[in-house]
Amino acid sequence: MDEDEKLLEKMKLRILRSFKWKDDVVNPLSDELGISNEEMEKILMNHLDMSSLEALHPTFESARPKCIAERLQADLRLCWLCDVMEIVSIEESNRIKMILVKEIMNGKNYDEALNDGKKQVLDLLLIE
Amino acid sequence: MDEDEKLLEKMKLRILRSFKWKDDVVNPLSDELGISNEEMEKILMNHLDMSSLEALHPTFESARPKCIAERLQADLRLCWLCDVMEIVSIEESNRIKMILVKEIMNGKNYDEALNDGKKQVLDLLLIE
Repeated sequence: MDEDEKLLEKMKLRILRSFKWKDDVVNPLSDELGISNEEMEKILMNHLDMSSLEALHPTFESARPKCIAERLQADLRLCWLCDVMEIVSIEESNRIKMILVKEIMNGKNYDEALNDGKKQVLDLLLIE
Repeated sequence: MDEDEKLLEKMKLRILRSFKWKDDVVNPLSDELGISNEEMEKILMNHLDMSSLEALHPTFESARPKCIAERLQADLRLCWLCDVMEIVSIEESNRIKMILVKEIMNGKNYDEALNDGKKQVLDLLLIE
């Protein structure tokens, strides 16, 4: 690896290891993907050029609600319950997801929030 | 419960317990939701009228690919890897999901298919 490449690597790594990045992007992503922080850093450095890397933090922050909602949609089986069987209405589905997303963005553990969501969905299902 | 309601219940239950229904709808759904078959039958009977119930089987069959793909999208963290970071391209993402959906529709266990998917995604991430 020549001097320029080494310098670029250093600069990228410095960004990734800054407090803001580590806490907001690298940690959550490596958790999400089930890999170590170092492996996550390596993947980001290999796949993103400097400007993508610099753009990633705001992109990540604004995408978090959408990606978390997508995960809740799947984990709460809302495709079946709402889209297919219409046992849960779209309004109820969106309301539940929106509240859980807010809680997770505010620091609540995903699995804990998911369990709350499951109880709420089950309550709706068990209404006779 | 009056006589008509009892008759309706019997008719609904007969549909739900027919071989086709049990195998194609009630079993997979109760698995998906983590509840017993009896609880699933009760929920369906309480929430669906006769014509919705009769329409459910073909609806379920045609919706399966979409709902499975949605679950894979979330479980493979493709929102992050593809939509946000563009480390996995849309083509690769769709290709992986499509193949896995086919395998699951053909009887492969979801978790087994998901593990294959995770390996494929990780291979893409680790390309330098």
